[in-house]
Amino acid sequence: MSLGFGSEERGSVKTYLECIPCFFRQALEVGRLTGVSDGVRKKILDDVALSIPGFSLESSPPEMARIIHGILRKHTGVDDPYKEIKEKSNSLALGFYRKLKEKVDKSPDRLLKSIEVAIAGNVIDYGVKNTLDVEEEINKILRNENEVIKREKPDLFEYEKFKDELDKSASIVYLGDNAGETVFDRILIEEIKRVDKNKKIYYAVKEKPTINDALLEDAIVSGIDHSAEIISSGSDAPGTILAICSKEFLSIYKQADMVISKGQGNFEALSDPGRSVVYLFMAKCPVIAKEVGCDMGDIILRYNT
Amino acid sequence: MSLGFGSEERGSVKTYLECIPCFFRQALEVGRLTGVSDGVRKKILDDVALSIPGFSLESSPPEMARIIHGILRKHTGVDDPYKEIKEKSNSLALGFYRKLKEKVDKSPDRLLKSIEVAIAGNVIDYGVKNTLDVEEEINKILRNENEVIKREKPDLFEYEKFKDELDKSASIVYLGDNAGETVFDRILIEEIKRVDKNKKIYYAVKEKPTINDALLEDAIVSGIDHSAEIISSGSDAPGTILAICSKEFLSIYKQADMVISKGQGNFEALSDPGRSVVYLFMAKCPVIAKEVGCDMGDIILRYNT
Repeated sequence: MSLGFGSEERGSVKTYLECIPCFFRQALEVGRLTGVSDGVRKKILDDVALSIPGFSLESSPPEMARIIHGILRKHTGVDDPYKEIKEKSNSLALGFYRKLKEKVDKSPDRLLKSIEVAIAGNVIDYGVKNTLDVEEEINKILRNENEVIKREKPDLFEYEKFKDELDKSASIVYLGDNAGETVFDRILIEEIKRVDKNKKIYYAVKEKPTINDALLEDAIVSGIDHSAEIISSGSDAPGTILAICSKEFLSIYKQADMVISKGQGNFEALSDPGRSVVYLFMAKCPVIAKEVGCDMGDIILRYNT
Repeated sequence: MSLGFGSEERGSVKTYLECIPCFFRQALEVGRLTGVSDGVRKKILDDVALSIPGFSLESSPPEMARIIHGILRKHTGVDDPYKEIKEKSNSLALGFYRKLKEKVDKSPDRLLKSIEVAIAGNVIDYGVKNTLDVEEEINKILRNENEVIKREKPDLFEYEKFKDELDKSASIVYLGDNAGETVFDRILIEEIKRVDKNKKIYYAVKEKPTINDALLEDAIVSGIDHSAEIISSGSDAPGTILAICSKEFLSIYKQADMVISKGQGNFEALSDPGRSVVYLFMAKCPVIAKEVGCDMGDIILRYNT
């Protein structure tokens, strides 16, 4: 599976071999979180290792991660090892809600500020090694430091196109990413609804636990249900791989006027040359930063077409 | 194989599962350095993955690394992918030589300062992810910042014991680590010889290329041959695994009055409850820092007994 930008644009089929060390790191992390014995940890790593030759050069990280987290579930017997972390992320993010809303209220461009807030929420990610500090990233937004990125790299922040499409769209599918980040998504969704309360927004979460990706309960705790209809992708991949989504999800996705794809996992997984998709994410690892042509930590708003 | 401190002291058999992501990172690094195709890189990662189940829970990192770098040689056809990096490390280190010698000359405790210099040279390491900056670490020594570590963690810096043993020892085996670091080792060796020119010092390098470990040519370029007799360990493991060293090396090693084991690779690999070994290294990765009970970047001088 390739990414959303078409291989013509990128010159060659994309490979993600650089992600493999990270999968072993995730496997070790889940081993620690679930407190299994060294013997079980060894079996986990052996099985993860044996799955590697089965990946093709074109496998996307979420496709590989889905298989690896299946192995982890089998050996640990724990269905949702990140449950506690997700709850903490939700609480942490809810603690910022009021301050972020005020920031939007005071901004001369409320929509732009809401987008920045939503993307900054993408810093909450345990799938990617968390070298970026959540509070620091949020404070950056509060200090308007991201203005520089938008000014200097306009191709990576297609705000005018986003505004135009949003104006014309009556229905929107917003593909969620991580727990906690959901609170930041809520701010953007609330701003969209404030301008036009008749817009129909669907917020898609994962069907089953996968890393720290948001589930129905996370979206509800975050308060998204007041402004959007929460739907499930029908899959347990940490990114929207259309081939394994449910029929119900695909029906809504296909009929929507606009698709907002949130987070690095969805950027990696969702390839759909057949329609316009706008990716909102923070470039959180060197592989993606190189792919996009940006620096680590940059906030990206970019179309697939 | 266990570490040098005996399992009694550490409570349980040491496992290094946390090192596995790092081996994949090394494999990717060698793929980049040798410029092989994506197809070859994939084959390398597949073969590295298939080797993982063959490692026991007690395998030391250098044992595993030796097998993995064998796979890399097979697929890339390149015997010494770090050759250019090693040459650059030697040049970089030689550029510091004069300044470091002056620092030793001005120090009230020349031996102590030479030890600090030698350990700081251990920051030059491409086997471990190089987040520690060489120049910055060297400048730290020049600013005496390591004094704090020695004062606050005396168990990790057994200087008095080192001085006593050195006084009593007529022959010393100094197990080298990385290219470039050799120049820093030279400073300690020259100081030992300055005090007593009759001491016989053997400096051990690896027999064949393995990561950026020093070979005969690196020791010679670094000028070690003027003060020590350069010998080979007889092995291509990035650490001194006694079981695979040459008979010639083992004969010298066994007869030596004192063994100075330099670097993290030797700390991980060399287990010899039968004799006194002093480990000099910088804790450069979280696995080793946790094992030793120190912080990343701490300089360690510690005995096995």
